[in-house]
Amino acid sequence: MARVVMKFGGTSVGSIERIRHVAGLVRAEREAGNEVAVLVSAMAGDTDRLVALVKEAGEHNPHLPMREYDAVVSSGEQVSSGLLALTLNASGMAARSWTGWQIPIHTTEVHGKARITDIPASALIHALTDGEVAVITGFQGVGPDGAITTLGRGGTDTSAVAIAAAIKADRCDIYTDVDGVYTTDPRIVQKAHKLDKISYEEMLEMASLGAKVLQTRSVEMAMIHRVPLRVLSSFYELGTENGGTLVCDEDEIVETQVVSGITYSRDEARVNLLQIEDKPGVASAIFGLLADANINVDMIVQNVSRSATQTNMTFTVPESELEKTLSVLTSNQDGIGYGSLSSDNNVVKVSVVGVGMRSHAGTAKTMFQALAEKGINIQVIATSEIKISVLIDEEYTELALRTLHTAYGLDAPLE
Amino acid sequence: MARVVMKFGGTSVGSIERIRHVAGLVRAEREAGNEVAVLVSAMAGDTDRLVALVKEAGEHNPHLPMREYDAVVSSGEQVSSGLLALTLNASGMAARSWTGWQIPIHTTEVHGKARITDIPASALIHALTDGEVAVITGFQGVGPDGAITTLGRGGTDTSAVAIAAAIKADRCDIYTDVDGVYTTDPRIVQKAHKLDKISYEEMLEMASLGAKVLQTRSVEMAMIHRVPLRVLSSFYELGTENGGTLVCDEDEIVETQVVSGITYSRDEARVNLLQIEDKPGVASAIFGLLADANINVDMIVQNVSRSATQTNMTFTVPESELEKTLSVLTSNQDGIGYGSLSSDNNVVKVSVVGVGMRSHAGTAKTMFQALAEKGINIQVIATSEIKISVLIDEEYTELALRTLHTAYGLDAPLE
Repeated sequence: MARVVMKFGGTSVGSIERIRHVAGLVRAEREAGNEVAVLVSAMAGDTDRLVALVKEAGEHNPHLPMREYDAVVSSGEQVSSGLLALTLNASGMAARSWTGWQIPIHTTEVHGKARITDIPASALIHALTDGEVAVITGFQGVGPDGAITTLGRGGTDTSAVAIAAAIKADRCDIYTDVDGVYTTDPRIVQKAHKLDKISYEEMLEMASLGAKVLQTRSVEMAMIHRVPLRVLSSFYELGTENGGTLVCDEDEIVETQVVSGITYSRDEARVNLLQIEDKPGVASAIFGLLADANINVDMIVQNVSRSATQTNMTFTVPESELEKTLSVLTSNQDGIGYGSLSSDNNVVKVSVVGVGMRSHAGTAKTMFQALAEKGINIQVIATSEIKISVLIDEEYTELALRTLHTAYGLDAPLE
Repeated sequence: MARVVMKFGGTSVGSIERIRHVAGLVRAEREAGNEVAVLVSAMAGDTDRLVALVKEAGEHNPHLPMREYDAVVSSGEQVSSGLLALTLNASGMAARSWTGWQIPIHTTEVHGKARITDIPASALIHALTDGEVAVITGFQGVGPDGAITTLGRGGTDTSAVAIAAAIKADRCDIYTDVDGVYTTDPRIVQKAHKLDKISYEEMLEMASLGAKVLQTRSVEMAMIHRVPLRVLSSFYELGTENGGTLVCDEDEIVETQVVSGITYSRDEARVNLLQIEDKPGVASAIFGLLADANINVDMIVQNVSRSATQTNMTFTVPESELEKTLSVLTSNQDGIGYGSLSSDNNVVKVSVVGVGMRSHAGTAKTMFQALAEKGINIQVIATSEIKISVLIDEEYTELALRTLHTAYGLDAPLE
């Protein structure tokens, strides 16, 4: 007997028909003798509909009242959790819906992107040991003042891991619309294959670097609390193989690859500042201004220029924040003291991730060589202990992914 | 300065445009220096949509799990209250949404038709005296076990009166899609006119007898707690006259009419049992069986028959329960002991209501005479201290209403 958390996203509960399918998956876990807590997102499209209503009501108001945003938007999960509990009841299973405040899932008071602080889970555990399926609203909790809070889009992954940690679940299964974590995007690289296991550290890098299968915070939380996470498809037919991908401790993976996965993110823009006076404090001036404007700077490179007293600076920001970035820099040209400014948003960040890098020399060389052979120019490089990211021209995305997938020996044998 | 409760139904908050209009009405009360608590229903259509989802999920299940029904259906008011609070915020007013459990509005645990038991209102009163508009979800509360409960369709009227009683409001304004309580249905009787005032007792009878402007329980509660109720239109233009109808104590009405209003209900069916053995206990046998089947019997008449040992019984039930009634009676024919059974659902109950009846003789005579002059046959009569109801053939509905409206001197002078 195990204690299991199952998480279902919006498309998995997008209609009563899909909810009935989910009820079947829950029944299978119960019939295997397991205790089951289920986390659900709002029915697909529901959150968008609610957000649109909120935006229409808040039109012309620069500061959306986020407390009310949360009150409105959180109602979507109340509906889907109630409907799933009702469907389970209808098929003869003991089940009950729980909202964030009924558990309670305590959070900070930052409406719209609250963080979970504490989950007193004794009532929930009592229901589980009584044999009742608990169907819990994802994406939300209750703040210190008793108001409903939400965790930000995609927050149901985080809710699921937090509940799993609170009830000491044996595993946390994230059901989604793909059947696991792939070596790279299979829509681009035909030879991509599903990983059976991946370490927390690698998954965390891959989630941060553009793989959208799990929310970054949920992986971080799973890593800290050592919750075994499994990513698997909710669309498979009952009774068929659905192993998914297990996200677990590195030492549970017998044979680690040098590189486990390759990710890419098109949501990048490059900014170049030329002829900056080369003196202490200039970088702090630039990035201080951007931080004050709430702009997330990612890769940063400072080049030596031919002049002894001047330097160049290159960095990347999310594409959606490029305009704001340029406006901040332009209006502070005198204060910063730079000659000219250029930018490019036709760039992509491609990253190779693998814990094996720690013990293998030459990983970076393989990457640079493979890209060079295809004539792909690297604009910026950033590395960490287990990943190497390069910024390249966006039109080389597919070529770069296929080239690197082959270069690191990840290609699946064609069947 | 007064403390005011304002209630808005589903059509009044049916779109962001309508919600902005409501925000304007709230602003006017605040600018008059009043403290304001607002009760809202779900946006028009939303509750129907949610009920349909619940029914689809509960299909083929004879017992709908009402706990989950409540969890799902109550989400509609969470959306409308959040949107109104947000709209008020957006126009610069201090406002906050409150759910039933946040107030808290304590109820019994009867899901789907819970009754309010207690409202500890100190937090709410604190917010009001701080100058904040409280926007409260109607139709719902929280049960003894912490689950969300609902009060039954139309329950927001009751929520509004209960909150008004709990915060000792100076008045409770029920905004709706008509501009007050009329002497009779103005769609049928052109000369019907709006009443400026009506007593609780009369309003209670009229609500029970078919006038749909207020939920019966809300009037009852207002009467018990002496909450001055006002019915008025939410569709009028700001700044124009919108007096509505005040529901108040009888002694606040200077000149009472003998008859204040005339109502009708088409949702009636007549049942006749002939040749019943005339012995003690037979009525109790019949109505005991119907009560056990949860059938609401309304008017009852027992006729003397020509035989000394036999009698006839006539009574009415709601049209929707006629089939069940006939089946209960037929399957118990031997036990009850009757000769034959007949029924008719082409009947209408027409009632005249007025506290003035208590002190005026001849009210019934006026009714019977007026109907007789038009050749309208009375099938059943029922009376109370302040109302007389008659059951007649449904095709005479309009004629009977117009005739009685004139007979009791209620016709408005044509303009």
